[in-house]
Amino acid sequence: MQGEEIRSRAAAAFALIRERRPLIHQITNYVVMNQTANITLMVGASPVMAHAKEEVADMIGFAGALVLNPGTLEPDWVEAMLIAGRKANELGVPIVLDPVGAGATPYRTETNLAFLRELDIAVVRGNSGEIGALSGAGGQVIGVDSVTGVADPAAVTVAAAAGWSSVAAITGARDVISNGERTVGVDNGHIWLTTLTGTGCMATAMIGSFAAVEEDHLVATVSALACYGLASEKAAEEAKGPGTFKAALYDSLYHLTPEDLEAGARVEVL
Amino acid sequence: MQGEEIRSRAAAAFALIRERRPLIHQITNYVVMNQTANITLMVGASPVMAHAKEEVADMIGFAGALVLNPGTLEPDWVEAMLIAGRKANELGVPIVLDPVGAGATPYRTETNLAFLRELDIAVVRGNSGEIGALSGAGGQVIGVDSVTGVADPAAVTVAAAAGWSSVAAITGARDVISNGERTVGVDNGHIWLTTLTGTGCMATAMIGSFAAVEEDHLVATVSALACYGLASEKAAEEAKGPGTFKAALYDSLYHLTPEDLEAGARVEVL
Amino acid sequence: MQGEEIRSRAAAAFALIRERRPLIHQITNYVVMNQTANITLMVGASPVMAHAKEEVADMIGFAGALVLNPGTLEPDWVEAMLIAGRKANELGVPIVLDPVGAGATPYRTETNLAFLRELDIAVVRGNSGEIGALSGAGGQVIGVDSVTGVADPAAVTVAAAAGWSSVAAITGARDVISNGERTVGVDNGHIWLTTLTGTGCMATAMIGSFAAVEEDHLVATVSALACYGLASEKAAEEAKGPGTFKAALYDSLYHLTPEDLEAGARVEVL
Repeated sequence: MQGEEIRSRAAAAFALIRERRPLIHQITNYVVMNQTANITLMVGASPVMAHAKEEVADMIGFAGALVLNPGTLEPDWVEAMLIAGRKANELGVPIVLDPVGAGATPYRTETNLAFLRELDIAVVRGNSGEIGALSGAGGQVIGVDSVTGVADPAAVTVAAAAGWSSVAAITGARDVISNGERTVGVDNGHIWLTTLTGTGCMATAMIGSFAAVEEDHLVATVSALACYGLASEKAAEEAKGPGTFKAALYDSLYHLTPEDLEAGARVEVL
Repeated sequence: MQGEEIRSRAAAAFALIRERRPLIHQITNYVVMNQTANITLMVGASPVMAHAKEEVADMIGFAGALVLNPGTLEPDWVEAMLIAGRKANELGVPIVLDPVGAGATPYRTETNLAFLRELDIAVVRGNSGEIGALSGAGGQVIGVDSVTGVADPAAVTVAAAAGWSSVAAITGARDVISNGERTVGVDNGHIWLTTLTGTGCMATAMIGSFAAVEEDHLVATVSALACYGLASEKAAEEAKGPGTFKAALYDSLYHLTPEDLEAGARVEVL
Repeated sequence: MQGEEIRSRAAAAFALIRERRPLIHQITNYVVMNQTANITLMVGASPVMAHAKEEVADMIGFAGALVLNPGTLEPDWVEAMLIAGRKANELGVPIVLDPVGAGATPYRTETNLAFLRELDIAVVRGNSGEIGALSGAGGQVIGVDSVTGVADPAAVTVAAAAGWSSVAAITGARDVISNGERTVGVDNGHIWLTTLTGTGCMATAMIGSFAAVEEDHLVATVSALACYGLASEKAAEEAKGPGTFKAALYDSLYHLTPEDLEAGARVEVL
């Protein structure tokens, strides 16, 4: 598969999201719930945030994807994530995991390793330190930021993906996405994404939206990150700083078309 | 009561909110807390978010209205909502209920039905599917969106209001509000309200603010929805998309005057 | 210490935040988590929100400051705040407390008094009613707003600081900050800060960021409030109302320089 084909499939998936409006069930952290719901709406999907053990399995029945983001984790929420995840696996609903702050505390690391062990995860997206910490490749995470990334993100991504039998994505100046066999780089994005909280979490919500309509999870992940990055580039043209950029990002993604995505995606098969 | 009288009372209620600054106690969902607090401030009231069983009854003592929004419900929160609701009933503080996602899972449906059964609710505001599901009129809810609305929102609103002895409001392109005897349509609003999360929840917070100063809950609800819709129309003139619209909505409501509301409210007695 | 020296140290501390990027561990309320994380990023520090008893003590090990904000308190969170606070004291990490709504309910008042009794708090920042209620000086709090402030904020601040062996800060049109011996007024700010939820909580996050790099907590607090107020003044020039002001505030703080702060801080030693 070459870059041109991926761009074409990205555009088709984007159109499908807006046609089908898949439900994206998100069990995510308090800090970013509002913005991951909104970015899901802007791309054209339908978000629902539901975390009660009393209802997560019922909600999954309608979902096109499940996003797990233990950024403000606690035991009850972790348990609900596992219940939802098992039901998603049973029903064939793809799970996208955002291991926020893995590596920063033992509790975060162990919780995310438990998810990887007990659930069949379709895609894991993190920063260099988080993926490094979970895959045993090194990197240092302080708080929720990757302070010392891994030396070779592409190699770590490939190894992580192979080890987990998942798509793995390390996002950064260049996003690197691999399923262990095929690896793709995405160069869309803007520096202001690094200045706001929750922009990684929004990327993960985007991946959930694309995974709900595109069965090849590598293509779904690449498409989502190119789409998100491209919208951020257009937003930066309208903004004066991170605050106005955040509002402009919603506007730009809302107005972005599949044709824009096909023309503007900067993907490279590695 | 004709449209002209309602517009006049809407303006008077709006002025009263800004004069008295009533406390609006909101036990609401994680996704929208920030924005329902802000919209409450913009209309001129004072929001407080408090959900601990240890304090909700004490907080109600100062409240002009109680807003219950189980959008990210779990048992502890539901219990706190019931404690707060009973105290509100005891003190005569009006309760406004937003049954987010009722119909989507049994847990959501049953929780909202329990509220309707055990509490004296002044106003229930939802989308067509939510009100349809709770009142037994049909409609389909997936996640928190009404996917298939009820065929005749006005008839369903009247029947729901009569059945619950509450004001019922279905918001949509036309909002329909009824107390079972009188029914009013509101045509203010803008399509971008449908593109952001929590805009229905903000409408409910607006209703709480008006219900704190206007004893006729039908008039309060109509006034709130007209005020909110009118602010959204003005905001859209300043915005380039949903992101800038959200910021502009706060600006426009903050600057809106009772005179603007009397002149711009589009209400029709049905 | 005169105003000129404080302005110079404020600029130096601001530069240090951007150089060191200290981790600011915040256990805060649901309403404002997103915006306190973002304001922390804009000033140049690194926020982390973590509240699980399973990890708070581990997270503190990397933190430059701990911010406790029980604005949507419940017993589990209060317990986590105490665990984190004790660890912070053990490690010498400064604690900044925002006693949201103290005085409004017995639960809020007693929880904040317990923090003051059981922890060594570096800085307490609140509105006039909150500091008045906690220090026994009077003032009335309804919800989370100070309705009747104390008659003489400067005197109350001095007495509170002396009583708690902490820096105390009452923010308002003029911010008054004291460590019981030295007292400083800060006149930066803009009226629109009073029209949005969480602006006091953001001020507290700013204080945490400065306290992570400046050991004199009086100077840190004055610097933070001057920096925040100055950014708000510049933001107001770009905004049309509270909504656009909020976005502009992030922009203006992001672009603000230590030189701007030294030139624009309006501080007066009282």
